Amino acid sequence: MTLRARVDATIHGPRVQAFIMGVILFNALILGLETSRTVMASFGSLILMLDALCLTIFVVEIGLKLFARGPRFFRDGWNIFDLVVVGIALAPATQGLSVLRALRILRLLRIVSVTPRLRRVVEGFLSALPGMASVFLLMGIIFYIFAVMATKLFAGAFPDWFGDLGNSAYSLFQIMTLESWSMGIVRPVMEVYPQAWIFFVPFILVTTFAVMNLVVGLIVNSMQEAHQEEETAATEAYRDQVLARLTAIEERMAATDDRAAGDEHRAGGRRDAS
Amino acid sequence: MTLRARVDATIHGPRVQAFIMGVILFNALILGLETSRTVMASFGSLILMLDALCLTIFVVEIGLKLFARGPRFFRDGWNIFDLVVVGIALAPATQGLSVLRALRILRLLRIVSVTPRLRRVVEGFLSALPGMASVFLLMGIIFYIFAVMATKLFAGAFPDWFGDLGNSAYSLFQIMTLESWSMGIVRPVMEVYPQAWIFFVPFILVTTFAVMNLVVGLIVNSMQEAHQEEETAATEAYRDQVLARLTAIEERMAATDDRAAGDEHRAGGRRDAS
Amino acid sequence: MTLRARVDATIHGPRVQAFIMGVILFNALILGLETSRTVMASFGSLILMLDALCLTIFVVEIGLKLFARGPRFFRDGWNIFDLVVVGIALAPATQGLSVLRALRILRLLRIVSVTPRLRRVVEGFLSALPGMASVFLLMGIIFYIFAVMATKLFAGAFPDWFGDLGNSAYSLFQIMTLESWSMGIVRPVMEVYPQAWIFFVPFILVTTFAVMNLVVGLIVNSMQEAHQEEETAATEAYRDQVLARLTAIEERMAATDDRAAGDEHRAGGRRDAS
Amino acid sequence: MTLRARVDATIHGPRVQAFIMGVILFNALILGLETSRTVMASFGSLILMLDALCLTIFVVEIGLKLFARGPRFFRDGWNIFDLVVVGIALAPATQGLSVLRALRILRLLRIVSVTPRLRRVVEGFLSALPGMASVFLLMGIIFYIFAVMATKLFAGAFPDWFGDLGNSAYSLFQIMTLESWSMGIVRPVMEVYPQAWIFFVPFILVTTFAVMNLVVGLIVNSMQEAHQEEETAATEAYRDQVLARLTAIEERMAATDDRAAGDEHRAGGRRDAS
Repeated sequence: MTLRARVDATIHGPRVQAFIMGVILFNALILGLETSRTVMASFGSLILMLDALCLTIFVVEIGLKLFARGPRFFRDGWNIFDLVVVGIALAPATQGLSVLRALRILRLLRIVSVTPRLRRVVEGFLSALPGMASVFLLMGIIFYIFAVMATKLFAGAFPDWFGDLGNSAYSLFQIMTLESWSMGIVRPVMEVYPQAWIFFVPFILVTTFAVMNLVVGLIVNSMQEAHQEEETAATEAYRDQVLARLTAIEERMAATDDRAAGDEHRAGGRRDAS
Repeated sequence: MTLRARVDATIHGPRVQAFIMGVILFNALILGLETSRTVMASFGSLILMLDALCLTIFVVEIGLKLFARGPRFFRDGWNIFDLVVVGIALAPATQGLSVLRALRILRLLRIVSVTPRLRRVVEGFLSALPGMASVFLLMGIIFYIFAVMATKLFAGAFPDWFGDLGNSAYSLFQIMTLESWSMGIVRPVMEVYPQAWIFFVPFILVTTFAVMNLVVGLIVNSMQEAHQEEETAATEAYRDQVLARLTAIEERMAATDDRAAGDEHRAGGRRDAS
Repeated sequence: MTLRARVDATIHGPRVQAFIMGVILFNALILGLETSRTVMASFGSLILMLDALCLTIFVVEIGLKLFARGPRFFRDGWNIFDLVVVGIALAPATQGLSVLRALRILRLLRIVSVTPRLRRVVEGFLSALPGMASVFLLMGIIFYIFAVMATKLFAGAFPDWFGDLGNSAYSLFQIMTLESWSMGIVRPVMEVYPQAWIFFVPFILVTTFAVMNLVVGLIVNSMQEAHQEEETAATEAYRDQVLARLTAIEERMAATDDRAAGDEHRAGGRRDAS
Repeated sequence: MTLRARVDATIHGPRVQAFIMGVILFNALILGLETSRTVMASFGSLILMLDALCLTIFVVEIGLKLFARGPRFFRDGWNIFDLVVVGIALAPATQGLSVLRALRILRLLRIVSVTPRLRRVVEGFLSALPGMASVFLLMGIIFYIFAVMATKLFAGAFPDWFGDLGNSAYSLFQIMTLESWSMGIVRPVMEVYPQAWIFFVPFILVTTFAVMNLVVGLIVNSMQEAHQEEETAATEAYRDQVLARLTAIEERMAATDDRAAGDEHRAGGRRDAS
């Protein structure tokens, strides 16, 4: 057993995994405490030190995995996920940007890659996405078309909402979620352009219908998967049994026929003899 | 028949159950009237007395059940539920806290434990929860991560909404329900941090998708249960019949073969004899 | 053929039905025009006259149906529906209350009772309700409990929203629909009672979950009905065929056995003879 | 091969299709850039020229398709769709209305008619609509009835919301989407007409229930289609096999019987001879 294989077995063993899980949870707690001013005022340096310790452990763990697996490390998407999530955590240490500091909590997502059950749930979510790609593409086209139209029509009077393509897309997303669409956006717009509802009501109907179709697609997909699994269990057993029995009957009949033919042959022999 | 068994039979008999149901409904009415100032001004003491009477009846009922069943009383979750719900009702009588007084109406929930049909509905609801545990856990992780990030990013400028972890979690829950998320929260935030939509729009998409998956899981689960029940009725009968008939055919064939073999044997005997 | 039978055949015949349909649509138009002040200013008396004419036609139609069918008229729920809807229309003519005048437009609902396809849709809707009765009852209990609690807890500080049971129930309904629940209601309440979210967030979770279960129940129900119909068509035909063929095989085997037994009998006879 | 056939083959060939796809995407980009004032200030004439170029390409393409196919061109709905969408784009060039200019972006929808996968998604959406026609009609009736009633009841006090049928229908649509229905509309109305909730709460319940039924119908429909496809694959193969085997057994039995009859016949002949 090479050193690599031994490191591999150790780092993926249940003990180290449980320890890493503990470190993730402890780190989540530490990063949660970091949001409290009173805690930071009293124990600021301790908390930063503990966070650095956790980070060190993660870096060492991933480094050992990389050493143990070599290029195969990158074949598992979850390893890349861990690398990125810990990598983000390394960046703020060097640059000190507040946004990157905030992103360090993404490390808690490692709990998903460490827990098989959560991995399966996330993989289930992700596996549903490709089937929805066409509808997403269609919604992207609809958004682009309506955003261009909204900008052309309302940019002059409502620069905050429809000033450029980005603003329009955001406002349309808000309208799609039905948040304050009428009282907040469309009624004020209709005071300037009384016919504006001809633009917004169809937008709501089309996007709502598209979202509804996404949900329906998701349901039908999950149902079919569940149905197929279920089918395999009970129905397949029954079907195999029926076909096996029919085969048995046919074989028995063939055997009877053969014997009958043999009888006949012997009978024919007797007839000749008599 | 011991005293315990007799008390058990009486207290769980249809008459006492119907009486308890009546007391629950009457108590619900009394507690409803208690919310009206005009009613309380005129009949306050009468209503408080009637409420105390109802409570006494419940305490006696549960006491008798405890006596009749002994430790077995605690094996039925609904008994513990009754105990807690009536126990809450006892607490305010001794402490007089207004919140605990308000909780007394929870006694009306006993109507669920008394009505088998409602019990089944609630049990159906509860039975769906374990299957959703992973998604709930995942949503908890997502909420914690986004709450920490929101607090780090926006606590300075918006202490009311994102001042600490609790405030952030509440605000994110509000945003997840899509209530005033844009006009109320995100647009004001974007006036200070113009890129804030990069944080909030993905949060909405991820949590909405997770909720959608919860609903889909619930539907698929209910459907499978319904499907299996249905299968058992019609399909099983048919399948059993097919298999029984195939067996019958095979047995008849075996019998024919046996007789044929017998014939042949006799025929062989005749041949020898001739 | 009696006069009654002749009236029955005429009034339910396609011609009269088409005429009544036309009158309903015309009446809907008339009642729509009645909402316009400019139209009423110019053609007010004409419109009122035409409305009275439509009403007269409906009254005569229902009167003839009553005459033709006698007490059997009341066996069809849709007849009672027509009677009520036209009866409402009669009331304002005598009392002149503005609410009752507004209710006259309900006459347009007769289009549902006249169109078989719409009748079926409405009957489909109504047939789904009994299966949801338990959940509705449970939601009623939840609403009553939370309304009593909300009134007890918040009536003092927020009389407009939680002043009495009715106000509380309305506010809770608004919160259940998620409309302005946080920015409009719960945040202001939390300024007085900082822990109020402990009351409202569980209320939202419980009622949303209950509504979700209603939808799931509706889907599973519709699916089962659709599934059963589908099953009947293709699967039943196949199953009948399989069973018929198995029966045929068994009968043929029985016949073969009988003949074999006959042969044997004859062969036995021959043996005796030889 | 005529000129028409050659033009047909060329214009529908993969190369021209890919080129047209490229032009659509490029045109979408151009029309997107047109919304930016800074871009238009610097490159306005170039962008307008490129847009005109794209439009010319589309006109030539559709002209050639029309020439190649003749009247058959109009048999394909997607061709008419292309014609309308490009036709809209032509209109503003002659009239200069800002709304028609904004509609030019609808040309991007051609990407749907050019991409088979998106065509199928849209066709799937459209195919679901006829099955929902009855419910849509019913919702139209409900909206008309409630709009007339709302106008009659509230036009005086709230002319902005319920001034005429159009305003009322818009406000009711807003209420159906649950946007600001209570805080924005119904609470203010209830300050004038305290009983107004009797009108609005049933409206919300009825329309929500109808929308829920639409979704359920959509799900059941999609599920049945998916189920039927699935059935065809595995189940049909099994069923055909069972029936084929049963037929084979029957035929074999018939053959055995025939031979047995033949034996008997010969045996009978022998008996006569002996």
